[in-house]
Order: sequence, then structure tokens, then C-alpha cells
Amino acid sequence: MTDREYMQLAIQLASATGGRTWPNPMVGAVVVNQNRIVGMGAHLKAGEPHAEVHALRMAGELAKGSTIYVTLEPCSHHGKTPPCADLVIESGVSRAVVAMLDPNPLVAGRGVERIRQAGIQVEIGILEAESRMLNEVWLCSITRRRPFVWLKAAMTLDGKIASHSGDSRWITNEESRLFVHRMRNQADAILVGRNTVCADDPQLTTRLPEGGRNPIRVVLDRRLQIRENANVFNGEAPTIVVCGPEADPAKKERLHSKQIDIVQVDVQNGQLDLMQTLDALHKRQISLLLVEGGSQVHGSFLESRLFDKMTMFIAPKLIGGSGPSPVAGTGFSKMAEAVELNRIDIQMFGSDLAITGYPVWKG
Amino acid sequence: MTDREYMQLAIQLASATGGRTWPNPMVGAVVVNQNRIVGMGAHLKAGEPHAEVHALRMAGELAKGSTIYVTLEPCSHHGKTPPCADLVIESGVSRAVVAMLDPNPLVAGRGVERIRQAGIQVEIGILEAESRMLNEVWLCSITRRRPFVWLKAAMTLDGKIASHSGDSRWITNEESRLFVHRMRNQADAILVGRNTVCADDPQLTTRLPEGGRNPIRVVLDRRLQIRENANVFNGEAPTIVVCGPEADPAKKERLHSKQIDIVQVDVQNGQLDLMQTLDALHKRQISLLLVEGGSQVHGSFLESRLFDKMTMFIAPKLIGGSGPSPVAGTGFSKMAEAVELNRIDIQMFGSDLAITGYPVWKG
Repeated sequence: MTDREYMQLAIQLASATGGRTWPNPMVGAVVVNQNRIVGMGAHLKAGEPHAEVHALRMAGELAKGSTIYVTLEPCSHHGKTPPCADLVIESGVSRAVVAMLDPNPLVAGRGVERIRQAGIQVEIGILEAESRMLNEVWLCSITRRRPFVWLKAAMTLDGKIASHSGDSRWITNEESRLFVHRMRNQADAILVGRNTVCADDPQLTTRLPEGGRNPIRVVLDRRLQIRENANVFNGEAPTIVVCGPEADPAKKERLHSKQIDIVQVDVQNGQLDLMQTLDALHKRQISLLLVEGGSQVHGSFLESRLFDKMTMFIAPKLIGGSGPSPVAGTGFSKMAEAVELNRIDIQMFGSDLAITGYPVWKG
Repeated sequence: MTDREYMQLAIQLASATGGRTWPNPMVGAVVVNQNRIVGMGAHLKAGEPHAEVHALRMAGELAKGSTIYVTLEPCSHHGKTPPCADLVIESGVSRAVVAMLDPNPLVAGRGVERIRQAGIQVEIGILEAESRMLNEVWLCSITRRRPFVWLKAAMTLDGKIASHSGDSRWITNEESRLFVHRMRNQADAILVGRNTVCADDPQLTTRLPEGGRNPIRVVLDRRLQIRENANVFNGEAPTIVVCGPEADPAKKERLHSKQIDIVQVDVQNGQLDLMQTLDALHKRQISLLLVEGGSQVHGSFLESRLFDKMTMFIAPKLIGGSGPSPVAGTGFSKMAEAVELNRIDIQMFGSDLAITGYPVWKG
């Protein structure tokens, strides 16, 4: 097996933890001695041993003279556990292959530096892109200090989210809708706009056959106009309402008394300030934010260039007419200004497609 | 190899002719004697031998006791060549596997019947769907007596064909646009609406590095309002203009004198009658009609349920705003009325997607 293949295995080990490591990143490690895997491990839970500890323990004496593959730079600081860099050195490892440096300022190259100074050969960057993608949510939290914003929308093959008369049930099939609940199950919070709440009165809960975790519900409602008996206030999950300075103080008070978290942000060009909104959500430990629309909200995140990933479900059907499209707002004036997505992934749910990509920010 | 695999090979032989058999269908044949291929053939050109003739000639004496696989029922009538059913019988074939019956009323089961009456075992329907798809254009011509209508459009991942200011250059990338020229190269005619001619002044010619065949240009222009110096009148390819009864006779006369073919059809609900239009194109030997839009034209074909295939190019970019969508017109009122596409195929051109499907007509 090659370095890339061992690292791929380490990424799989990390990925298998399914994000239960939060607020720590997912990390996997593989120890190889004379072309034989002698240790494998993953960090399972914050406070518990890191991936390197599990893998090196498993390797035991065979760690001497081995190569360790680890998806993230070994830590160099005493946190809840002793520094892994020291353990790597003490175990007698002779080569360390690291997918990516730890952006955490407490580490940031120091782990690798300590290992290198102990005479261990170090290589950095094998499957770095894959490793960054594995921890994209954690990386966003650490480096941008805001939630990772994942836009999700659904449309017909002719670009509509409803017929000209407003009918939108259903665009996608049952399999797609089930997958949306899996996305919600992963998310810390779901955000929608006031129009969506008024039009559809959604519950915004996770409804999966095997159960699931309800995300926090976040509603953008500049003037606090949602009905107080809307489903988002049904108590099944915590709810945050983001409003502007013109919201009615009495209504704020009433919602507050019902355990609704009211966040007030500034209004810019007639729109709630999204950066302030994300900052408030970051302070509430929200790391993965799923933005489910409607089209005005998607337009705002697009124009503010404040999103990290987009998944568009496309149902292979044609409705024609003048129904609304999935991303509205003001939009860009020139096609050349459009935000391009790369790293395109296509999933199929029955005959529905889900196209996922990452925005390319120019300049 | 199984029956399906031999038939798959016969379909490949047929498909390799690339439609040069017109007005005949593409047909392939494989002769197998004791699990060994002893004959292969395809019909290459109208007036030349049919697929069975080539394959049985190649098999020679080994045709005796063999199985012949043929993608279309052997003919039973004297056309430009003698009936293939007779040749199959005379060659001593003991089993005939046929993908589909010939819908041509001159054959329509008689070929198979003659073979069966000669004591040859006949099986029908192996890879029938694939075989029908191979000759979808020809089948439409024979059974519906109108051109096969292939809608083609392109949009952003948020369903727009232009920005709010009308900018549409370019939505798709160069690879996609090159492929559109390959589609044009296959088509007998391209149809667009007056709005597209006025907005873009397109040439509607095939521009491929290796050359290519220009399709006939068809413009829907109810009131004959296109400028007489538009590119579609540049003489590089024949042009047909379809107009309604209110078109100016003097302008009709002037265009006619420039070799422009003027077709007058009725107007129904303010729109040119598409069935009459297709009928006129069928009479002009147009078998594959590529409909390139704009969105009103696509909407008309959708509402009339007069299309056979749709290819939507999707560029993975987001423009936002209120730009137009690829299929407009009145549209359907309920999402449940939307026309579903099946047999979905996804091609990628760089990071652009092309999604192709076939409409499912209910009831």
C-alpha cells in the first residue's frame, strides 16, 4: 500500500466517528511497520484519547521504527490529554505522515516541529484536501469563527420552486425528502426566513424512521411578524428568532417568556445583517447551519458571500410558467459575476438529483 | 455470451452507423454458431444491403443451424432489396432473436411470421427498449408522422437563463457549447422563437472543429416581425419561417424571394399551432428537430405536450435575482401536473452537467 492508501484508511477511520467528536475534530491514525498495519485508531469523543494514542497503543512494541499516518497534525499542548507529539516521539516512530497542519493557534505547526526536532522524518500534505473536507465544519469554526453555512434548496428541472399559482407540494420525491431529514440530523441549526414560516408553517424538526436529533430552529424575521402560534414555536426544539431594531418590544417580551431566544442585529440595505447573525449563532456553539430558504434568504446569503456549501435537489420534471426560482434577492447583474461552485458531487435519490458544490471566492 | 450480450453487440453495430441510414432505420445483426460469432453486419445506407444480408454473407455455410440476432424485425416485402425474412430462411438459420417488431405497416409482424412458419424458432423483445431508443427518431417519423422533438436549454444551478439585467453570456462552458454544436450536427432542423432571434441574432449553424452539417433553421414568428437582415437569413443554411395568418403579405413575399420558406399555420390561444408546424416540417423530411428556445417556445412545446426528449445543461453557478427561467409560457398550475421525465442520463462537460430525460405522458 502507498502513503495515500494508508492515509485514505486513516481518513475513513476518522470519518466513521460521524462527528461525535465535537468540539474536537475527527482524526484517524494508522501505524505501519514494514508494510504491515500494526495500529489503527480514531478520536471518538472530546476528553477521550486522541487517534494517535489508540493507534500507538495497538501497535505496542511494533511502533518502534514504524510510520504513523495521521489525518491532522499531532497536538503539542496539554489539553484534556497529554500532547500526542510527545507520545509519537516516545513510541519510537521513525516517520510521521500528516495530512494537514492543525489551524488551532495552540498547535499550528508546533506539533510537527517538535516531532521533526526529535529526528523523526515528517511529511505533510498527503490527502490534505480530503482531510480538510472531512473537518470542514470544525475548520470553519476555528478559522472563521462562525458556523459553516450549508444552503439547501430544491427545484424542478426548469428551475422552479413552485407553480405560477404557488403550489410546491411536492417538488422532490420521498427519498430526497428523507435525505433532507438526514441533513437536518447532522446540523446544529436550521435557518429559514419569515416568508417560509408564513407560507408553509414548517416544524423544522428531524423526522427519521430511526429517530434523530432536532436542530435548533433559526428564523430571520426583521419586524417580528410571525404568528405566535406558528409551529416553530411549538417547543419541540429550541428556537432563535433574529430580528432588527424595529421589532415590537412587547412581542419580543412575550416570545422571550416562552423560552424563545431573540437575537437583535442591525439592518443593512433593508436586510438583517447576516455576519452579526452568524456571530450570534457561533456564540451559541452552532457549528453547522443548514439554510433551507426561502429564495430571498438564499439570495441574501449568496449576495453576502456567506456560505460554504450548496446542495440543490433537482426533480426531473417540467412545470413551465412563471413560478419563483430557488435563489432570488437582488442577484448579480452580469453572468460573469455569478458565484461558481466546484468540487461538484452528484447524488441520486430515485430519479431526483442532488448536486452539491463549494463556492469559489474570487479575489 | 448470453442472448442479451449478442443483441447488445448487434445494437452497437447498428449504432456505429450514426444515422447515415436515413430514411431507413439503423439495424445491426450478429450470427452465432455454437457459441461462436460467425457473422456481423449493419445496414449502412438506404438502397444498400440490410444488416442480415451482410451478416449472413459473412457467415456463409456456417449460417446453417445458427442463431441470428437482429435489432429490428427482418423485412418481408420487396423494397430496394429482396425480403430479409426469405434470406434468413434460405440460409438455414435455426433460431432468430429479434429485439423489436418493425412498426412500418409494410412489415409489422409479417417478417417474423414468415420466419416462424418456416420452422425457425423466433424470440422477440430482447433489449427492445434499447433498440427502440436507438431508432427513436425513425420510430417517431413512422408512427407519429412528425419530427422527433428534442428540447434543449441551459441554466444556472439556481434556474436562471440570464441575470436580472438580461446578461446571459455565458451560462455554460466551452465544452458544453461545443457539445451543442454536436447536437446541431445530428439535427435536421433547429427551431427558435422570434424573441431569441431579436435578442441574440443567432446564426444557428453547426460550428465544429471538424466541420459539420448545418441544420435547417426554423423560426416561429407569428407576425413576421424579424428584421430582414437577421443572421438567420444569411443564406448559410435553409431557413423556414412559421407565421400566422396576420403576417404582412408584402414581407412574406420579400422573404420568399430570398429563398426563405414561409409556412403559415393557425393561431390557437395566441400561439402558433405547433401540431401544424410539425406537420409542415414532417412534409419537408425533417425527422430530428432540436428546439433551442427561448423559454416561451419551450413553454409552448411543454404545454402542447409535443416533445420527445429534453436536455438541460446546468452550469454549477449561482446568479440570484429575478432573471428568467428556461421554460416559461403559462405553465401548469399544480406541481402534480408537472411533466415528469424518466430514463434520466447525466453527462458532464467540465463541471457543467447535461441532464437528459424522456417525458412520461400520463393517461
